[in-house]
Amino acid sequence: MPFMKSILLFTLLFTATFHQVFSQTKIERWDRFEISLKGPENGNPFEDITLGAEFSNGKEKIKAAGFYDGKGVYKVRFMPQSVGEWKYRTFSNSKVLSGKSGSFTCVDPTGENHGPVKVADTYHFKYADGKRYYPFGTTLYAWTHQPTALEEITLKTLSTAPFNKVRMCVFPKYYANVENEPLFYPYVKKGEGKTSTGRVKLEWDFTRFEPAFFEHLEKRIDDLKALGIEADVIIFHPYDKGRWGFDSMGRDNDLKYIKYLTARLSSFRNVWWSLANEFDYIKTKPRADWDIYTKAVVDSDPYQHLCSIHNGSVYYDNWKPEFTHVSIQNGSTVEDFGRAVLLRDVFLKPMVYDEVCYEGDLPQRWGHLSGEEMTEAFWQGTITGTYVTHGETYKNAGDTINWAKGGRLIGSSPARIAFLKKILEEAPGPLELADPWKDHHTATTADSSYYLIYFGKKMQQEWAFNLPKKAGPAAKTKFQVEVIDTWNMTITKLPEIFEAGAPVEYRIFDKDRKSIRLPMKPYLALRIRAVN
Amino acid sequence: MPFMKSILLFTLLFTATFHQVFSQTKIERWDRFEISLKGPENGNPFEDITLGAEFSNGKEKIKAAGFYDGKGVYKVRFMPQSVGEWKYRTFSNSKVLSGKSGSFTCVDPTGENHGPVKVADTYHFKYADGKRYYPFGTTLYAWTHQPTALEEITLKTLSTAPFNKVRMCVFPKYYANVENEPLFYPYVKKGEGKTSTGRVKLEWDFTRFEPAFFEHLEKRIDDLKALGIEADVIIFHPYDKGRWGFDSMGRDNDLKYIKYLTARLSSFRNVWWSLANEFDYIKTKPRADWDIYTKAVVDSDPYQHLCSIHNGSVYYDNWKPEFTHVSIQNGSTVEDFGRAVLLRDVFLKPMVYDEVCYEGDLPQRWGHLSGEEMTEAFWQGTITGTYVTHGETYKNAGDTINWAKGGRLIGSSPARIAFLKKILEEAPGPLELADPWKDHHTATTADSSYYLIYFGKKMQQEWAFNLPKKAGPAAKTKFQVEVIDTWNMTITKLPEIFEAGAPVEYRIFDKDRKSIRLPMKPYLALRIRAVN
Repeated sequence: MPFMKSILLFTLLFTATFHQVFSQTKIERWDRFEISLKGPENGNPFEDITLGAEFSNGKEKIKAAGFYDGKGVYKVRFMPQSVGEWKYRTFSNSKVLSGKSGSFTCVDPTGENHGPVKVADTYHFKYADGKRYYPFGTTLYAWTHQPTALEEITLKTLSTAPFNKVRMCVFPKYYANVENEPLFYPYVKKGEGKTSTGRVKLEWDFTRFEPAFFEHLEKRIDDLKALGIEADVIIFHPYDKGRWGFDSMGRDNDLKYIKYLTARLSSFRNVWWSLANEFDYIKTKPRADWDIYTKAVVDSDPYQHLCSIHNGSVYYDNWKPEFTHVSIQNGSTVEDFGRAVLLRDVFLKPMVYDEVCYEGDLPQRWGHLSGEEMTEAFWQGTITGTYVTHGETYKNAGDTINWAKGGRLIGSSPARIAFLKKILEEAPGPLELADPWKDHHTATTADSSYYLIYFGKKMQQEWAFNLPKKAGPAAKTKFQVEVIDTWNMTITKLPEIFEAGAPVEYRIFDKDRKSIRLPMKPYLALRIRAVN
Repeated sequence: MPFMKSILLFTLLFTATFHQVFSQTKIERWDRFEISLKGPENGNPFEDITLGAEFSNGKEKIKAAGFYDGKGVYKVRFMPQSVGEWKYRTFSNSKVLSGKSGSFTCVDPTGENHGPVKVADTYHFKYADGKRYYPFGTTLYAWTHQPTALEEITLKTLSTAPFNKVRMCVFPKYYANVENEPLFYPYVKKGEGKTSTGRVKLEWDFTRFEPAFFEHLEKRIDDLKALGIEADVIIFHPYDKGRWGFDSMGRDNDLKYIKYLTARLSSFRNVWWSLANEFDYIKTKPRADWDIYTKAVVDSDPYQHLCSIHNGSVYYDNWKPEFTHVSIQNGSTVEDFGRAVLLRDVFLKPMVYDEVCYEGDLPQRWGHLSGEEMTEAFWQGTITGTYVTHGETYKNAGDTINWAKGGRLIGSSPARIAFLKKILEEAPGPLELADPWKDHHTATTADSSYYLIYFGKKMQQEWAFNLPKKAGPAAKTKFQVEVIDTWNMTITKLPEIFEAGAPVEYRIFDKDRKSIRLPMKPYLALRIRAVN
């Protein structure tokens, strides 16, 4: 076994946070194990060298693709999903990289390591360890392409914000209010040209990736992980328009990029794949190609991370089995009652309304929701068992637009979203409309012990205790009612105990037809919980 | 060729209307050509004998399945889709039925023969001859299982009603308000048993069809054809519940039934296949079996008739390629603005809201829409480029419930539906929302020369001329406006001429910001047409 002589060149790395490297062989379940090998530097290693490793714990065998990390260093990363002893062996078309073997011990997770997020109960999510995960996302498209100080401010903002998912682009974004050059580029520059208008146009060698770009991206994804935030990684987007050309590299280069990206990121437990933002606005890629790209991502990912594709104005075929959930842009779905549930019920998958317009003051109509409207959107989505994503587009002198570059949040909705998130996390399980086509206000949980009624903008003085018969409580169940002011973030528990009577047609009233007085305010909700 | 000696037993039939048999060899395009042959009567011909014919005009070859029609008579039916000379040759496992050949001439259609309805322009329909078809359906689930006199009244009612599609069940229906035995049964009775409650239960030989049942069904489908009405034939439904057992024959018998039904009916140009009504309420058939049934129908139909599957409370996988359009039950979709378009845009197929509750006075909540609500549902669907189906559920002493048994129509919506149908037929093409996520009121046609704005229940004194920028008119286009009272069925043309200005953000106003006064009435609409 002459290859084994090179064992000294082989270092076992476990990257807990970026640039902190430990030599150890104990890896937490769902953490990242990394093989690092020295190999050929001549030619074009990105094109010439294949590398992977097979990992086995005696029961499972998992193949992970490796990648060239520059300067003669090759890596294979792996996310163990079961505790116990794991062995591995590399394979490569380079003799020096092939047949390297080793082992490590996968141990129980600690702290806030709950594993990757998976689909649960058809329309919802759980972490791999079984803990519920309710997505409350925000949008920071180009936050990793900003000066370091701004990226750090963004992380500080996120550390106190309610958001547990971030939509973010791999490639830099060129759009109104986001026009700066990034610090890192994903490809090696091969020259400079001029556009027809005389602007400098950088030219790229699409066969040579720039490892520093990806290391930076990885550091930021790990930073999010440390904050308990999932990274909804947008692989392609239309906001390039000839600036760098990353939206029009051609199918072969696109597929090389997918292969490289997934080899680097699949072992990050907080990564979700978003094939594209506004796929239909990327005019350089025909619709049929998205199936090819999606399959390439899913086939390259040994762990089945969550995967979706986000639309502009035309929906993609979200029913295809590669998509674990549905990521929809359409603000009207959560603007009023009765809409969000319509799309949800089609796909039998979790529905994330990932773009529903943004809180802010831009002139564009997608960029000036009031805080009340953004909060309303979250409530409309939540009571139907769907999930909504935030974004902030206030434009202030001396400040960034959070939705694009990150930075501070100044809107009024995040506090209300945090308030709603706490309410949802206190529920006995995920919500569903109890009687979805007839009562668009009343959510319940699977055991009919809990109801959350949202009134929206409509004010009323009185509410007669009443619940739908469908998914309603058994007669004689006793309930206590709390009045929630979703805007002022107060919860007022009423002293009365209500008792469910027998159904009267399609509703269940209090047996004595008791009612409550309500303050004349908009945006009220009622939390109704069974008591013993 | 000794088989040819039996040629005298072979009669060429063209059934224009039931029991009227002509011996001729000229068949209109999309009419029905029928081969009738004498064959074996012994054994069980339904099970033992296979029969089909290949039809060819030199360019196309089409195989049509035959069927046993009882009393030693076998038939093969064919719907020619191209004019010219057609030849055919039968094939069978019975020597006496095999190798029969002949020919006929397919000639141009006449009168109201526009051919079968097909999908056009993604979300809409046309007849095969290119004439637009806008579905305005009604629901007559069990109309063909009623006494003859009542069936004739139903046809008379339909002859003056606006409806051009009827949803109707093949099998009889047992449900509240439809409890009578039908005149015909689809199977040969083999005995009588008793239910556990002592009721007589008829027992069937599911291997022997009753041709009289199907002849009757065919006559009624031809009666509808004569009225220009499409028959949306519901192959399975859940309204049996042990009464006859036609919902629980087992998969083998179900597939035999599909084969027999499609052999008999595929040549009827006005047939649409509806795999089921409320498929999810048929508890005897697992969800996965619907794919098998659907494929069986589509594979047996040489003409690709329209095909859908109708849901109860859970949608089927309407994206599957066998389904030409989407047939949805969900009243809430057309109850208010902004909903109907959400489901439509998912499938990239025509959307027919085939059950949106019914005009009537039944205590069940699906059975007591007011005439205003039923009419509103049609307008809500129409302005979003979707189609809505009517049903009437008034229960009067001495009258039938139209939705179940047929009979008379007494509701107030059919006249308003006729009024809307005329408006749609006068439009230059099918409607779409111009700006679908932001303006739920304004429909337009492909050429931006026509706008139809519906205000619904909301009343207003004044309307400033304004259209969406998206799919809006070019500046300087001149328009005339008509005020439509959708309930009182009046159209008032206003004298003013409006002229589109340049877009102001997302809207286009009259260049002088002219507005009109509106009567303070609900259910108004505006028809806005370009003038030269």
